[in-house]
Amino acid sequence: MQVVSETTAGVLDELLAALPDGVVVTGAEAVEKYRHDWSRDSSAGTPAAVVRAENAEQVQAAVRWAAAHRVPVVPRGAGSGLSGGSSAVDGGIVVSLERMRAVEIDSLCQVAVVEPGAFNKDVKVAAAAEGLWYPPDPSSFEICSIGGNVATNAGGLCCVKYGVTTDYVLGLDVVLADGTLVSLGGKRIKDVAGLSLTKLFVGSEGTLGIVTRAILRLVPAQGARSTMVATFPTVRAAAEAVVAIRTTMRPCLLELMDQATVNAVEDFRPSGLDRTAGALLIGQSDAPGEVRSGEIAAIRAACEAAGAAECFVTDDAEDGELFVQARRVAFNALEVRGSLLLEDVGVPIPLLPDLLGEIVAISAEHDVEIPTVAHAGDGNTHPVIVYDSHDVDAERRARTAFAQVMAAAIALGGTITGEHGVGRAKAAALPDQLGPDVMALTRRIKDALDPDGILNPGAVLGG
Amino acid sequence: MQVVSETTAGVLDELLAALPDGVVVTGAEAVEKYRHDWSRDSSAGTPAAVVRAENAEQVQAAVRWAAAHRVPVVPRGAGSGLSGGSSAVDGGIVVSLERMRAVEIDSLCQVAVVEPGAFNKDVKVAAAAEGLWYPPDPSSFEICSIGGNVATNAGGLCCVKYGVTTDYVLGLDVVLADGTLVSLGGKRIKDVAGLSLTKLFVGSEGTLGIVTRAILRLVPAQGARSTMVATFPTVRAAAEAVVAIRTTMRPCLLELMDQATVNAVEDFRPSGLDRTAGALLIGQSDAPGEVRSGEIAAIRAACEAAGAAECFVTDDAEDGELFVQARRVAFNALEVRGSLLLEDVGVPIPLLPDLLGEIVAISAEHDVEIPTVAHAGDGNTHPVIVYDSHDVDAERRARTAFAQVMAAAIALGGTITGEHGVGRAKAAALPDQLGPDVMALTRRIKDALDPDGILNPGAVLGG
Repeated sequence: MQVVSETTAGVLDELLAALPDGVVVTGAEAVEKYRHDWSRDSSAGTPAAVVRAENAEQVQAAVRWAAAHRVPVVPRGAGSGLSGGSSAVDGGIVVSLERMRAVEIDSLCQVAVVEPGAFNKDVKVAAAAEGLWYPPDPSSFEICSIGGNVATNAGGLCCVKYGVTTDYVLGLDVVLADGTLVSLGGKRIKDVAGLSLTKLFVGSEGTLGIVTRAILRLVPAQGARSTMVATFPTVRAAAEAVVAIRTTMRPCLLELMDQATVNAVEDFRPSGLDRTAGALLIGQSDAPGEVRSGEIAAIRAACEAAGAAECFVTDDAEDGELFVQARRVAFNALEVRGSLLLEDVGVPIPLLPDLLGEIVAISAEHDVEIPTVAHAGDGNTHPVIVYDSHDVDAERRARTAFAQVMAAAIALGGTITGEHGVGRAKAAALPDQLGPDVMALTRRIKDALDPDGILNPGAVLGG
Repeated sequence: MQVVSETTAGVLDELLAALPDGVVVTGAEAVEKYRHDWSRDSSAGTPAAVVRAENAEQVQAAVRWAAAHRVPVVPRGAGSGLSGGSSAVDGGIVVSLERMRAVEIDSLCQVAVVEPGAFNKDVKVAAAAEGLWYPPDPSSFEICSIGGNVATNAGGLCCVKYGVTTDYVLGLDVVLADGTLVSLGGKRIKDVAGLSLTKLFVGSEGTLGIVTRAILRLVPAQGARSTMVATFPTVRAAAEAVVAIRTTMRPCLLELMDQATVNAVEDFRPSGLDRTAGALLIGQSDAPGEVRSGEIAAIRAACEAAGAAECFVTDDAEDGELFVQARRVAFNALEVRGSLLLEDVGVPIPLLPDLLGEIVAISAEHDVEIPTVAHAGDGNTHPVIVYDSHDVDAERRARTAFAQVMAAAIALGGTITGEHGVGRAKAAALPDQLGPDVMALTRRIKDALDPDGILNPGAVLGG
């Protein structure tokens, strides 16, 4: 379906009239900051208006208006997305959820009832006040929204043991493409009544509806963590340690940083990491009592067997957190070095060494810098292609490498995106992974739920 | 969509010609045993043929034939379903997956690649041989199929800590309504490329496609378990203990049996349970080391605070398993007492005492016996309505009680089915839970994927 955009002044007046003063923003300067997410998509358009919704009814009013005039609607959380999932569309509207930030903890039910604009961290903090924990932890947890987490089925560092966003979503309120508000799921833990609609909306990147409320499962607070940090001569050696570790246990964190990333982080925020190491592996265990030291010992033994040069172990929470923070700032550290193309490719865990080897080869072949960090314990890697956007040839080589990294992951039975989403950045590659039959199936569901194609056009399914 | 069934002899000859000898069964006696699942649905029809598929290609051939002639297709695993999800349809075909039972363990990837007819137990046994574990454990795990588990998003006893089937499904091969075979997901742990189609098919009860292969996540083997068994004067007191326990921890099993169930089990297979207790609660912890004894002590303390008469604790695995087995045979023990209407209602955990109170009241009001067992730790209960099917008035009262129990769950913010599925037994009640907008959304997805309505007509969405 082609969206016909007719956002003339008269049509916009209808939108302004349908919503309270201050909710709809149309000034060129004001809408500018709603054009991009963190991926800095250079093809992002300019919206005719931004609806800064305060509640679900306002989201409904905006979508009803858009449906009536076939205006593209791009939902937006905190704008921290990494795949251009919330790049604005020329002549469309952005529905920003940034003002809907309520978080309510129901400690008896062990759930959080959360508006989509609340940050992931807000949920963690509110849960912790009741002795509870919301595990999903994207590196950006301090600045990313729950709505965006749900839209992309976001992962993070502790997923290797605790799973990803979808594992914690018990219910969703969603505004559909015609403005209908549906309530899916609820505070009950188990529920198989009807199709798994809640799960379908998780990870749909705003292409099927706009989430206005999420009911999130909470669990008892995480136990104390011990940390092991090991240095390796090569990325492949570190990856082989990961494969060995994951066949025997589920650590609660298992992150890899290659040499280029370590050096970028040291330049950005010195953390005492070993700049000479080919790769760094950070492992944590939160198992109770003696089991924790046993797990850490097993992680260390696997690292040593794989050729680790040095292993450092600490039971001190703050010491361990310093390493994890160094890992979390990797994107920020790399961003200051140039323009970035952010990958998020994953493979079955035993193929992690092969994938990392391919990335090194692609980097060399195209003379492109590709520092890589990885949620290694899940086989999910973030090769970050750094280039000078003022150098046309460098950009061309960067884009070639970007496509080749995705192709390498697919060839290894992997995925082009493990947790960031397809957005617009990877929409062209999606058919390569899914094939024509699954694309057709996807299109049938999209058309059934959004027949006029007004919801986030261009994202996931492409133009 | 209305299915037009034209299974004349000439049309059936086409099906017979399309498949190898022995795959298609048409004799009246042979098809008889494919008419019902364990719910003994009295309105089940008689199929024109049963396709006992040996591989995905044969499933495709059968579905292509059915699509060409608009013949209803009822997929069937082991026939252990409890909601009439695989009741046969007059003039339709049953596609039985009972012969597709291969299980392959990939221990490096920590996944099982399983054909749908394999029993849940087959996967557990194969995984255990590699030191791995497939957690989902319906009480019927020894005789229920993985295909059925996926179709209903089956739960079980350890779900309270380890989650349900959908949490373990990484990929599915599915034959769609036109006979197309699609491969969704794979052996990678994290994958957000495109819509969450794998998750949509889990729990779709054969109404969207037929699963021909599942890739299931495995985890390291479960640790040693300790068991606590407590008796309570009333069901409500036991339920209050459950609420208290679940606000502080996640035991790996927390099961409730009421007095009527305890007595039925003792009659069926004497296990030394206390027939005089108003309710029995079984709790287990598999936490490592000292934490296990701490959890068991906390479970016990909560039981005593809620008024438990007696508490028994054991670290002996066999002793503990005896109690769990007594719980697992509850349905078999009740089946010999009369005809059954099997409920599967759930509520948010804090409302479990209220739900159980409602069940007692409904039992009294309609003079119907409703023994109840519960996966109490998840708020998921199985009130079992026992009646004499030769007594017309008893059957009428039983059916009234059946509807009222579902209504009570809905009124408490709960669900009509936590793990058994809607099937045909609960299709009439589904709109009461979901409401018209969610039903319409469900119908749109069904129509998009199965426009002629040939897949499991009557199930979930009703006639």
